[in-house]
Amino acid sequence: MDNLMLQALRGETTRRRPLWIMRQAGRYLPEYRELRSKYGFSELVRSAELATEITLMPLKRFPFDAAIVFADIMSPIASMGVEFDFDPGPVVFSPVRTASQIDALRQPTRPEIAPEVATALRNLRAALPAETALLGFCGAPWTLAAYLIEGRGAKDFPQLRRFAAEHPELLNVLLGKLTEVMTDYLLAQHEAGADAVQVFDSWAGLLSQHQWRKIIRPHLLRMLQRLGEAGVPRIVFLQNAPHLVDCYAELPAEVIATDWRVDLAALQRRYPDKAVQGNLDPAVLLGGPEVTRASARLLLEQVATRAHIVNLGHGILPNTPLESVHALVELVHDEVDANS
Amino acid sequence: MDNLMLQALRGETTRRRPLWIMRQAGRYLPEYRELRSKYGFSELVRSAELATEITLMPLKRFPFDAAIVFADIMSPIASMGVEFDFDPGPVVFSPVRTASQIDALRQPTRPEIAPEVATALRNLRAALPAETALLGFCGAPWTLAAYLIEGRGAKDFPQLRRFAAEHPELLNVLLGKLTEVMTDYLLAQHEAGADAVQVFDSWAGLLSQHQWRKIIRPHLLRMLQRLGEAGVPRIVFLQNAPHLVDCYAELPAEVIATDWRVDLAALQRRYPDKAVQGNLDPAVLLGGPEVTRASARLLLEQVATRAHIVNLGHGILPNTPLESVHALVELVHDEVDANS
Repeated sequence: MDNLMLQALRGETTRRRPLWIMRQAGRYLPEYRELRSKYGFSELVRSAELATEITLMPLKRFPFDAAIVFADIMSPIASMGVEFDFDPGPVVFSPVRTASQIDALRQPTRPEIAPEVATALRNLRAALPAETALLGFCGAPWTLAAYLIEGRGAKDFPQLRRFAAEHPELLNVLLGKLTEVMTDYLLAQHEAGADAVQVFDSWAGLLSQHQWRKIIRPHLLRMLQRLGEAGVPRIVFLQNAPHLVDCYAELPAEVIATDWRVDLAALQRRYPDKAVQGNLDPAVLLGGPEVTRASARLLLEQVATRAHIVNLGHGILPNTPLESVHALVELVHDEVDANS
Repeated sequence: MDNLMLQALRGETTRRRPLWIMRQAGRYLPEYRELRSKYGFSELVRSAELATEITLMPLKRFPFDAAIVFADIMSPIASMGVEFDFDPGPVVFSPVRTASQIDALRQPTRPEIAPEVATALRNLRAALPAETALLGFCGAPWTLAAYLIEGRGAKDFPQLRRFAAEHPELLNVLLGKLTEVMTDYLLAQHEAGADAVQVFDSWAGLLSQHQWRKIIRPHLLRMLQRLGEAGVPRIVFLQNAPHLVDCYAELPAEVIATDWRVDLAALQRRYPDKAVQGNLDPAVLLGGPEVTRASARLLLEQVATRAHIVNLGHGILPNTPLESVHALVELVHDEVDANS
């Protein structure tokens, strides 16, 4: 069988579009909720065995073309000596806002960074059929810095923005450290069996284009270049940052993935050498199979088949009916596309 | 004395830039917190006397060039027969999601729409000196629909997005009704003494440009045209929607106001016939007078003086030190601008 996801990552035309869903191993699955009722979230992400089991859950229900290892964007942060928990999002016990705190952050060796994730990936590579791509991931340096500085998710992250204005040099040092660790983390995931990696930049949209170029770009560029030199296929995902989509599309990565705010067809036309991933609005799936089919059909009509990886524009919502996911899978599998 | 704000609204060059601050009558003021400790928020907005007192509070501390009437974007919604409270944001008792609920929404006569706001404006016009502009405002139809459909503020408003996909015709009817009421409301505010009005579109950024053109634009256009015919100066403010800034700048309004995500100087160059308002990051003020001065100085260097109304890019944050506001006022008042 072909691995459609890897073909699309290489920019090839596939016999049909590959499909996976962000947070496909998540709360919309009854079997996940069942397991979650027995364990805390941090127990789930810290156990390679449970993470393996959870990663495989959606694949037993749906013929997705990729599995993404179950982990949290904060998983590698523990190895830097930062203490945190989940409530339900990450809560950092001592927000990182001083030079001495940034100095004190450990630069772990590659095997020290979230070893449970590497173990889960090795388990998964052995368990998955060859036609299913295995994905690793990390949070982008800025998005991780957002949690480290703010201490927890907050509307528009005011302490982060204040810190960026008051201490640009310290922020740059922090982003540099995070970049090194995350790059090593992704390289370790690739070595453990990940076919490709996705970098999630969830909070870049807090910045203007000018700020983005100054604050974020040099670090992302360095990370993506190192991954490219190691031959790791790269997906860059940004959400709630439609004004930055060209900034991201110009970075060295095989795939640009966006949320529903971006016109994916226009993006595909502007960057014909890139694969695109996305971008059905996950809220649409709340409405059931009929509206899911209608929205998905429109997406498939507008975005050309070549190097289009179908996905939602953000993580699937916890109260999504399974019937909507079935409808999406069916539509993508049934497509006889005139564009290809 | 000149009314700098009205001069800027007309696109004239002012001897210095006018300055006001979104939520200038808010929780960063000890006297507001003191009053708020005695009354519920809904008591404050429903009393013309208290609203008048609160509106004037910041003017006693700072020589702002405009006062904006203290009210909530939900204030006019009561006259449509919708029941809601605040916790702390708006909570609609029965979210509006069916044809019969939308049918049942009242179309109030002009004097029925938030009469306490009109009374407060008449009080304020009498109390304010001629050099201080008096502003009215309303929430944009889409932003109000967001609360009516979702029921309360929620991350990315999933029920709103689902409703937009499932029931585009119903949404259009709802937006039409809201547009009529909000236009009448702004006309009533102008008749009661408001020199200009600001339309707040807080949640437009949930949509793509394509969706915006289809769903929102016709209604905003109708509202702004009716206001224009009545000679009401119009400020359109959008936040967290930098990808829509040109969509809004092309609407018929004297002023385009944006958050800090937008390059205001570039916007001013693209629309030389418009006044621009904004857009210092309110989080910067959390850092105190020094970083406030540095950021404000940069803004004044980059944005030309002509028809620039200085403001923050979003409401001032509750924990802002008063010293930061003093520093901003001083800098704007001291400016000897080489651009003018």
